[in-house]
Amino acid sequence: MKIPVIKEIFNANDQVAAENRAIFKQDELFVINLMASPGAGKTSLILSTVSKLPETVRPGVIEGDIASSIDADKIASQNIPVVQINTGGTCHLDAPMIRSALPHLPLNNLDLLFIENVGNLVCPAGFDLGANLAVVVASVSEGHDKPYKYPGIFATADAVILNKSDLIEVFEFDMDFFRRGVEMVNATVPIFPLSCRTGLGLEAWVKWLLEKMRNRDS
Amino acid sequence: MKIPVIKEIFNANDQVAAENRAIFKQDELFVINLMASPGAGKTSLILSTVSKLPETVRPGVIEGDIASSIDADKIASQNIPVVQINTGGTCHLDAPMIRSALPHLPLNNLDLLFIENVGNLVCPAGFDLGANLAVVVASVSEGHDKPYKYPGIFATADAVILNKSDLIEVFEFDMDFFRRGVEMVNATVPIFPLSCRTGLGLEAWVKWLLEKMRNRDS
Repeated sequence: MKIPVIKEIFNANDQVAAENRAIFKQDELFVINLMASPGAGKTSLILSTVSKLPETVRPGVIEGDIASSIDADKIASQNIPVVQINTGGTCHLDAPMIRSALPHLPLNNLDLLFIENVGNLVCPAGFDLGANLAVVVASVSEGHDKPYKYPGIFATADAVILNKSDLIEVFEFDMDFFRRGVEMVNATVPIFPLSCRTGLGLEAWVKWLLEKMRNRDS
Repeated sequence: MKIPVIKEIFNANDQVAAENRAIFKQDELFVINLMASPGAGKTSLILSTVSKLPETVRPGVIEGDIASSIDADKIASQNIPVVQINTGGTCHLDAPMIRSALPHLPLNNLDLLFIENVGNLVCPAGFDLGANLAVVVASVSEGHDKPYKYPGIFATADAVILNKSDLIEVFEFDMDFFRRGVEMVNATVPIFPLSCRTGLGLEAWVKWLLEKMRNRDS
């Protein structure tokens, strides 16, 4: 008899992801799974996005890191409800980790939940968390070849953010090459060049996000 | 009967890593396992380091990526012997992958082999490849909190490179905070701030590396 160990693990995650999705739907909570390299600016994107939201959209955050509560401390300092998950050594979040974090958040008083995944362009792509959107944050300082080297995570994205876009000239970043790489694996995904540092480009991203939230059930 | 599956996998890797190490020793080849986030500048560090080596030190490279041969093409364009490993979806190199690459390199005509691992600050730390040195490349644009968030990989390093150091002011990078984070998990590891773009700080790193190569057997 063949024992399907690997398949079983993935089914367990997908089962819990489906349960998370049902909880989010019942609580009318819109959820974003934010994935990126270490240091691309996931936390900065959360804080910048929140600063542009209408007051009627109440945000919350789940922070995923191997260790430390540095990012959660930054979020909490802005009076945003936040839970820190320390994975120990695990290179991605999974649906059961998200499930275990939910009782620590005031779900009834939230409209938009950001899940900041562990900084990693490989492993997080394989694990459904139950989110409405998968958003990949790339950054100009990482170089324009990332979609070619890490196609899997760009293939899963519902939106691609290109952070640190104020430094395109400093890093001689080739936007056309980057865009072609993304389109090669994900032909229609929107790409939002922006800079959390200067505020450049934030409006277009937030407008698109609010539109997605309005149309979630249609 | 309990079947120790996980342990067996790690033993298999360690077994092949030991065999790699014996091959490297026999061929008098000094080997560096280069680990970093995506876009920290591993390939740039290889090319910059090679440009500062004495002519008697003949370099070779094994490139590890999920997909593409972008980095190998850059190396080959400088007439450096290179093999590209595409891992498919695997988030790190392992010792058997290195073993399978060795027949494609002129080992007898090489003195220094760079292994550029998959861009990832988590997974590569767990896999011995048989190298003489583990070198972690951090970069200023990733931010000064990386040692706190990814302590495991900094703990395994024999040297830490801090690339893009010409941009310390642009990114408001706190060097003391970074250094304290590294020292918390690896008290005596040398840290080399440098810039592959400007050449700043390269001499100190190359001098240290050549010293390590001379003393490898002492």
